[in-house]
Amino acid sequence: MADVLSEHDIELFRGKNFGHIATLMPDGSPHVSPVWIDVKDGLIWVNTLEGRIKPRNVRRDPRVAISVQALDDPEDDVVIVRGRVVEITTDGGADHIDELSRRYRGQDYDDRKPDLPRLILKIRPDHVAH
Amino acid sequence: MADVLSEHDIELFRGKNFGHIATLMPDGSPHVSPVWIDVKDGLIWVNTLEGRIKPRNVRRDPRVAISVQALDDPEDDVVIVRGRVVEITTDGGADHIDELSRRYRGQDYDDRKPDLPRLILKIRPDHVAH
Repeated sequence: MADVLSEHDIELFRGKNFGHIATLMPDGSPHVSPVWIDVKDGLIWVNTLEGRIKPRNVRRDPRVAISVQALDDPEDDVVIVRGRVVEITTDGGADHIDELSRRYRGQDYDDRKPDLPRLILKIRPDHVAH
Repeated sequence: MADVLSEHDIELFRGKNFGHIATLMPDGSPHVSPVWIDVKDGLIWVNTLEGRIKPRNVRRDPRVAISVQALDDPEDDVVIVRGRVVEITTDGGADHIDELSRRYRGQDYDDRKPDLPRLILKIRPDHVAH
C-alpha cells in the first residue's frame, strides 16, 4: 500500500513549510490543524502533545491526510498525502520538538509542558498526489 | 448547532490566507487540500470545480473541517472550523472565482475550464476553535 515520497516532497517536508493534518473525530467527521512536519526513513513525523485531539483521534482511527504548500509557491507547489499512523511513541519526542523548533523558529522549543509527554506520530504515506 | 465566526475569523477568511479543507473519502478516511476561502452571510465559501475530489466527497458526506493560518503569524493566529456543507451551487460560481483570484492573485482567473462548471460549497461553521 505504501507510496513513495519524491526527493522534492521530502524537501517540502523538511523546509519551513507547515503541514495541515486531517484526522477523524469519534463520530467519523474530519478535524484538521496546522503542524510542523518532518520525514525520517520514508515516514512522515508529526510531533504532538499527549492529551491533544490528534493523538486521541489517531489512536481510535489511524487514517490521516496531510497537505503541504511551499511557502514560496503555495499555489503550484503542493503535496497531498493520505496514509496512516503506524507508530506512536514518546521515544525521542522531546529532542525532536527541539529539532523542529530550531528549524521553524531558529531556537529550542520554549513552550514545554513538563508533565505532558511529547509524542511522535509516524505516518506511512499510502497515496501521494501533487 | 451553528457556531459564530468572530470579526477576526472573518478577516482571516477574507485575507490572502489559504484554507486547508478536510473532507471524507468513500471509505471514511480523510482527504485534505489547500483552497481559497471566503465568508458571506456567516457561511464559509469554497470555490471548486465539478469533478474534483472535494465536491464528490461532500455530496456523499457533507461534514468538513477547515484550518486557516494567518500568513503573517502562522504559529499563533490560527482558526479551526468544523462544519458541514449546506449548499452546493453553480450560481455565481464563475464570478466568485474571479473575485477570489483578484484577491489572491491580483487579476481575474485565467485557468478556466469552460466545459466544467465552477461550484460554490457553502459551509455552516458548527464548531470554531483558535
